[in-house]
Amino acid sequence: MINAFYREMTGKESVIRQFFDFSRKRAAELGPDSVFNFSIGNPSVPAPDSVTKRFEELLRTEDPVSLHGYSPTLGLPSTKAAIAESLNRRFGMNYTPELIFPTSGAAGALSHALRAVTKPGDVVITFAPYFPEYIPYVTGTGAELKVVPADPSTFQINFEKLMEMFSPEVSAVLINSPNNPSGIVYTTETIDRLAKLLTEKEKEYGHEIFLITDEPYREIVFEGTDSPFISAHYDNSICCYSFSKSLSLPGERIGYVAVNPKAHDAEKLVPMCGQISRFTGHNCPSSLMQRVIETELYNTSDLSIYEKNANLLYDALTDIGYSIVRPGGTFYMFPRSPIADANEFCWTGARELGLIIVPGDSFECPGHFRISYCVPTEQIEKAIPLFETLYRRFTE
Amino acid sequence: MINAFYREMTGKESVIRQFFDFSRKRAAELGPDSVFNFSIGNPSVPAPDSVTKRFEELLRTEDPVSLHGYSPTLGLPSTKAAIAESLNRRFGMNYTPELIFPTSGAAGALSHALRAVTKPGDVVITFAPYFPEYIPYVTGTGAELKVVPADPSTFQINFEKLMEMFSPEVSAVLINSPNNPSGIVYTTETIDRLAKLLTEKEKEYGHEIFLITDEPYREIVFEGTDSPFISAHYDNSICCYSFSKSLSLPGERIGYVAVNPKAHDAEKLVPMCGQISRFTGHNCPSSLMQRVIETELYNTSDLSIYEKNANLLYDALTDIGYSIVRPGGTFYMFPRSPIADANEFCWTGARELGLIIVPGDSFECPGHFRISYCVPTEQIEKAIPLFETLYRRFTE
Repeated sequence: MINAFYREMTGKESVIRQFFDFSRKRAAELGPDSVFNFSIGNPSVPAPDSVTKRFEELLRTEDPVSLHGYSPTLGLPSTKAAIAESLNRRFGMNYTPELIFPTSGAAGALSHALRAVTKPGDVVITFAPYFPEYIPYVTGTGAELKVVPADPSTFQINFEKLMEMFSPEVSAVLINSPNNPSGIVYTTETIDRLAKLLTEKEKEYGHEIFLITDEPYREIVFEGTDSPFISAHYDNSICCYSFSKSLSLPGERIGYVAVNPKAHDAEKLVPMCGQISRFTGHNCPSSLMQRVIETELYNTSDLSIYEKNANLLYDALTDIGYSIVRPGGTFYMFPRSPIADANEFCWTGARELGLIIVPGDSFECPGHFRISYCVPTEQIEKAIPLFETLYRRFTE
Repeated sequence: MINAFYREMTGKESVIRQFFDFSRKRAAELGPDSVFNFSIGNPSVPAPDSVTKRFEELLRTEDPVSLHGYSPTLGLPSTKAAIAESLNRRFGMNYTPELIFPTSGAAGALSHALRAVTKPGDVVITFAPYFPEYIPYVTGTGAELKVVPADPSTFQINFEKLMEMFSPEVSAVLINSPNNPSGIVYTTETIDRLAKLLTEKEKEYGHEIFLITDEPYREIVFEGTDSPFISAHYDNSICCYSFSKSLSLPGERIGYVAVNPKAHDAEKLVPMCGQISRFTGHNCPSSLMQRVIETELYNTSDLSIYEKNANLLYDALTDIGYSIVRPGGTFYMFPRSPIADANEFCWTGARELGLIIVPGDSFECPGHFRISYCVPTEQIEKAIPLFETLYRRFTE
């Protein structure tokens, strides 16, 4: 008997996927210039040359039996040490190698962190707009995800609504900054206020509340943006990172969990992640990939195009009349839809013009739409007149 | 509050791990020649040169954005097609690319296959001796693992005991052939008898019983051994494979699920695996690794050393007096302990001599011990006199 829960899920395609399929179909019918795909969060700049050179050097110089051999369950010691040292140097932290757990990207990191600090029946709080895969990540642990509505004036945390959602069952709070889909970076003020609130609630409930930080966009922050290292502001925190965006390696599935040295039972959490892996069939990331990133921890791809695109698009769209909270990083922005129904705006209006953008409903934030601008700048320049036509169509 | 279930597990080190640690400690104290480590199942021969060349060629010729880009959730189409074709050509099957799901090694494959065909409360049957990680793989799905005792005269399936363990709750049977730790390969007769029994039980209970086959040692089969392709003998079957052993790439975490084209709801199972990944934080294996193995599906490392070692060790140990069922493949054998308590034999007797072997209790098969002979042949030659001393000590 095949599993009914997973079977029933297979019928339902994600909205992002539907847009992607439409985009491919239209390009096939009318030519690639007829479609401007702003729906995909895939880095558009190559990995740094140093990454390719590092791959080649390892393949040329290392014994294949050792290079491709099993990683210890908790990760290669040299990789763990290099990651800890880089975080300490960059952010003034005191990570030891034992607090670092290499994972298959951020998805692996979040799934381990969530299982380590929740039990079935617990509540995990996150904030709209949010990456929709948080739902399976959290429900897969047996916990329940509760979502704090957005403050669309800033996309910082809506503390008033957050206060209403607290209960003793809350064992973790999950944040994503810099944020997909808003592009917003939580300020030091936001993080400190959240830390203070969590500390109060820990006292009130008599148990820890872990802050799990999803940080794949940490290196993509634009000039002048206040971008604190979150774990420095709250002790019971677990940082989940991926090299997918900073090194343009999304397919190589490499990231890590970094447990705050000051967290309660900090030294237990990485060994627990090793146990969790056994039950989920997760494995250490590729041994080769662990070795590759050891020397690339201070490098990034040339990320400047994302800031260039952000400025170009933000200026042009706000000139047209769109209302947008200016992104502080990532390669996303999240304008307000000129009509209340962002689905209609994206599905009918934008698609007819060949503009592929994703309605905010997918991120539990209706009335907005996401533009992924990890595309060649030329594509943005060509698309701006279409964004204008679209705006006029719905407002005049 | 950190999760008590996983926290309590961290105290308990696996027996194999304890032997490994002892081995390292002894080598540090008395020198590397003082210890003969037969406890680890790590390939000792390098990956084929063609694998290294393939890596280098991809890195040199492919666009990095595409090479390191996201794989579709269900795997790269070119990789899926190549795997399907290789299985069809080699084993006369009719796999389509849609029935192949690339995974992070066999652990990922088994965890997906088990979740796809069981639900919490179901029973999964396996056979002693078995790889102890089957316990978390199965219990992680919410199902219960029941173990059929071994037939130590052949280490084929003990059908009498199997019959006693069937119940309507059984939704899957999990086998591992060629087998870790026995080195035995299930014969065509065994597989056909199992298939017949499962078909009868499916009729009796009115639901499918899936046969999940764990086949990482499929290419390591010795001359003259009957080694059927199991999925050709039973329709409701899912083959779980890893390239860890055949290509000596255990650290690269690459394997697959292959759903039998004749299985009930076959076309649903791979999309279900994609859904399962979302809940466990599993990800497609590395895009680069998927591309690498596409051209290596008919290659293996030079596996001849394992057969050479098997023959040398089997002949010498049986001459000494050990009772062993001759292995048909893998790089393991599973002799009977000369005394009933294999723990005493391994922990005190063997360890004192520097022989690191693992008691069968770890594989739910007491009274035996596992020798991993994926080591240089010289190590075996040097260790044989110690195996003799050990035997005499316990029998004279």
